[in-house]
Amino acid sequence: MALRVLGIDPGLTRCGYGVIDVEPGRRARLVTVGVVRTELDLPVEQRVHGVAVGLERVLDEFTPEVVALERVFAQQNLSTVMGTAQASGVVMYLSAARGLPVTLHTPSEVKAAVTGYGSADKKQVANMVARVLGLDSPPTPADAADALALAICHAWRGPARVAPVAGAGGAALTPAQRAWAEAERASRR
Amino acid sequence: MALRVLGIDPGLTRCGYGVIDVEPGRRARLVTVGVVRTELDLPVEQRVHGVAVGLERVLDEFTPEVVALERVFAQQNLSTVMGTAQASGVVMYLSAARGLPVTLHTPSEVKAAVTGYGSADKKQVANMVARVLGLDSPPTPADAADALALAICHAWRGPARVAPVAGAGGAALTPAQRAWAEAERASRR
Repeated sequence: MALRVLGIDPGLTRCGYGVIDVEPGRRARLVTVGVVRTELDLPVEQRVHGVAVGLERVLDEFTPEVVALERVFAQQNLSTVMGTAQASGVVMYLSAARGLPVTLHTPSEVKAAVTGYGSADKKQVANMVARVLGLDSPPTPADAADALALAICHAWRGPARVAPVAGAGGAALTPAQRAWAEAERASRR
Repeated sequence: MALRVLGIDPGLTRCGYGVIDVEPGRRARLVTVGVVRTELDLPVEQRVHGVAVGLERVLDEFTPEVVALERVFAQQNLSTVMGTAQASGVVMYLSAARGLPVTLHTPSEVKAAVTGYGSADKKQVANMVARVLGLDSPPTPADAADALALAICHAWRGPARVAPVAGAGGAALTPAQRAWAEAERASRR
């Protein structure tokens, strides 16, 4: 039974998202991929709202079971880090409101998981994403490829926790989450 | 006709909120004030969700017409800035989803507006908040007083824009927003 993972590369100008189904045996299949964009000249709260509306459509249409989100550091690019963090906050809220667990992965964790080394460049990551998912060409733009890489990373590293958010709509593991957790435990023995 | 302003001092550990009614003649009245708290040891998405649930109650019960939010800078305290930015993102989303305009004010703008100088300390700000609102003692904790100071600052500095968010539920100014905008224009002549 496959686990459906939504990866999100957060941002206000381009917020990448990618949904994959992953078998416990690590085989992964693309479900959907894309980018939510908002205009630079809009007030910031409208940009945050636009990202949220776009991601809500993805959550409602493709019903992922877990969300993998890029971990944002305050030390990153100062001109974009606040927007990235604000978008991350909304992703966390929308996920938790649906009872979905959120796991955070750093860019180097994602690169290491997907390509084998943590300092791979964007092109290498996109090429590996295409190979893992059996796509004819790397997904574009880079934000979309990064979102799929996050989802793959989450699936391959094993979730830090798969328990749904207590008191936020999900009280028990879904069958897929349970199967996944069991496969994860088995693979560690 | 009074304008109802919600001030928010964003944060995950303590998120201060304060609602005031302000007459065009600058007289301000306290409507409600408080703090939403979340536990430090919860997963971050549950903390963000907890802040959102608390603020949604305030928005729904007290129906403010504008939201004044502290502007967060990436250069601030690194250990808390990401949580603060994530909480800000959720405030922006919740406000925009209700068609409420959000204005951002820096801490020194708030201090200058309320006390007359931008480097006032927390106690001076809290004392002036109490005086402006006719309270017997300064509101506590500091996050609650700061939220009220943000609301007062917003009302006194004049909103950068009072137009509700286009396409997000509010198409026209409310009578209070219109009266306020007119009073603002008149005071600038």
